[in-house]
Amino acid sequence: MSKSHFKELKRYKNGNRSGILKTRRGPVKTPFFMPCASRGSVKGLQPSQIIDSGTQVLLANAYHLHLQPGEKVIKKLGGLHTFSGWQGPILTDSGGFQVFSLAKARKVTEEGVYFKNLASGGEVLITPEESMQIQFDLGSDIIMAFDDVTGLSPTGRTRSKEAMERTHRWLVRCITEFKKLTKNSFKGRTLKGVKGTTLRNKPLLFGIVQGGLDKNLRKKSLEFVQSQEVDGIAIGGLAVGETRKEMYDMLNFLAPFYDPARARYLMGVGEPADMRYAIERGIDIFDCVLPTRNGRHGQVWITGDKRLNLNNLKYANDRGPIDSKCDCHTCKTGYSRAFLRHLYKVGDPLAGSLATTHNLRYLARLCEEYQQT
Amino acid sequence: MSKSHFKELKRYKNGNRSGILKTRRGPVKTPFFMPCASRGSVKGLQPSQIIDSGTQVLLANAYHLHLQPGEKVIKKLGGLHTFSGWQGPILTDSGGFQVFSLAKARKVTEEGVYFKNLASGGEVLITPEESMQIQFDLGSDIIMAFDDVTGLSPTGRTRSKEAMERTHRWLVRCITEFKKLTKNSFKGRTLKGVKGTTLRNKPLLFGIVQGGLDKNLRKKSLEFVQSQEVDGIAIGGLAVGETRKEMYDMLNFLAPFYDPARARYLMGVGEPADMRYAIERGIDIFDCVLPTRNGRHGQVWITGDKRLNLNNLKYANDRGPIDSKCDCHTCKTGYSRAFLRHLYKVGDPLAGSLATTHNLRYLARLCEEYQQT
Repeated sequence: MSKSHFKELKRYKNGNRSGILKTRRGPVKTPFFMPCASRGSVKGLQPSQIIDSGTQVLLANAYHLHLQPGEKVIKKLGGLHTFSGWQGPILTDSGGFQVFSLAKARKVTEEGVYFKNLASGGEVLITPEESMQIQFDLGSDIIMAFDDVTGLSPTGRTRSKEAMERTHRWLVRCITEFKKLTKNSFKGRTLKGVKGTTLRNKPLLFGIVQGGLDKNLRKKSLEFVQSQEVDGIAIGGLAVGETRKEMYDMLNFLAPFYDPARARYLMGVGEPADMRYAIERGIDIFDCVLPTRNGRHGQVWITGDKRLNLNNLKYANDRGPIDSKCDCHTCKTGYSRAFLRHLYKVGDPLAGSLATTHNLRYLARLCEEYQQT
Repeated sequence: MSKSHFKELKRYKNGNRSGILKTRRGPVKTPFFMPCASRGSVKGLQPSQIIDSGTQVLLANAYHLHLQPGEKVIKKLGGLHTFSGWQGPILTDSGGFQVFSLAKARKVTEEGVYFKNLASGGEVLITPEESMQIQFDLGSDIIMAFDDVTGLSPTGRTRSKEAMERTHRWLVRCITEFKKLTKNSFKGRTLKGVKGTTLRNKPLLFGIVQGGLDKNLRKKSLEFVQSQEVDGIAIGGLAVGETRKEMYDMLNFLAPFYDPARARYLMGVGEPADMRYAIERGIDIFDCVLPTRNGRHGQVWITGDKRLNLNNLKYANDRGPIDSKCDCHTCKTGYSRAFLRHLYKVGDPLAGSLATTHNLRYLARLCEEYQQT
């Protein structure tokens, strides 16, 4: 990390801050939310529709894209941006979270993680080095370190400490590999076809803080990650099943210790109330499956962070939009709750696309309220 | 039929003609193809995307919309145009075809057709009068008579003759009901919110010719339908399993007998080669599930009326668009065959939307080649 890629523009009384994250595909206003494009696409949406929702950055997943279509295929086709048509910045998840979410299908060793390839039945080893290589091949703009994610195991502190320490050792290996890859790849080369590129054409690297619900471990982990050459600090291992109070406690606890010169990313959080709480504790970046997955199943947010289920019979005759105060494409165009309910009822994927558009706009607008205009 | 709603602009040497069908929602250039919006929407596409493909008219289905959400609900919500957001003309199928396509779930009597409501388990009776009422309530611009559709039954001519005669008796009942409904509904009223309306604000009514593969019956049926007060002539009961040669023979046979002052609609045909053949035998209008259903499953047409299956492994590294000569949104935007294949592979409904857009444009462009510019 030769220079800071994050600029804090303003710090507010209630704890939040507005800033700019400088990526090789242009600057991004913080705070921001990243929709999941795990397999390279936000299900049912074209890039133009994603941009239209106010989305600035997409999250793609190294593990899923490694299995299908494979990072080498994507690299050959010009990288994930050319492949998917999304020209904004892309952050790639390292595959570490899949150690947790696909827990039954893996084995963790010091070397890396053995996944079961659920498609082929074979076994896949992903090491920190390979995760870097995959994310590099994909053409990621923000690369995540490969971490050892633990849930709330009954073994408590022991497993948390072990996972944290392994995450730290893996971070060092990630940084070494990242430097090797960037050194080989960016000797005076410019990134073709990217407008507004203002920085050296290297991706950013974010480290991940672990430590479960143990405050001492979390503080140690944050200090360690911040001592390393990383461009951003991610808080991993929260939003994995703990109570809201436990998560909030940890966010409060960590708030005073963040390096102001680096972006902070709370992984896996996307419930509006939680995002507001976290933003007011200094968090800049979020991702979550909620707006997309919920949208596909008929759940949408409306003003006041309330949820509404469009499958509900009571909307069968409702000619109003999802939210009359919303400026998303779906609400502005005038699609009624009654029509959307009908689309879910008959299994038309247009329902999911329209609701996803609305949900993404909801979270983008939430963030915009906190951004410097 | 007080005056003709079809204007033949030009007749060409090879048998085709270009014309204008005047609907209460403005004029439509012929020949044209109607995508299936059976349940009020073209699966996965917004109205703006459908217009963008060059589509002029949608086909919706009285039977399906009667069951869900019900024509009374749609009427209460302002009609199918307001409900779905599609502002162009809509033709509604009468439900007659479902007698054939849902054959196991029905019983035909002189009164009408008993359908099994597959959703509720109950029985639904649709009579010619009720079909008119349903289409009226939906706000259809082109109403189809309720017909008795037969497949290629082993009983042959007998069943064809019976079905044809019943179709004729039902047409008379449809016309009577249609007159009653239009008389009550259009006493000097104008259609709200419709731009470009140049005619009396009544929907059009099309009669349907039956007669199976028997030329004598077909000729009789055509003469009967043309003797009635209908605005257009539909050829039903073809494209139901007969050979291509049998269908082509019938189209050739019927060509000299059409009334030039009325539009001719070949129901259920949408294979490009068949459309060209039919257009050159004087057909003006088409509908078919092929471009939408095939699109959702990965089948697309490319120049030369060839089919390509995007699921095929050989496209995994293909950076080209579906068809480099195509001007559809999908091809122009640059979505590659490789990306589309990937989307099918991971089950993203965006695949179906993008391929449907391409297929609809393919058929719209095919028609445009025959239209007067």
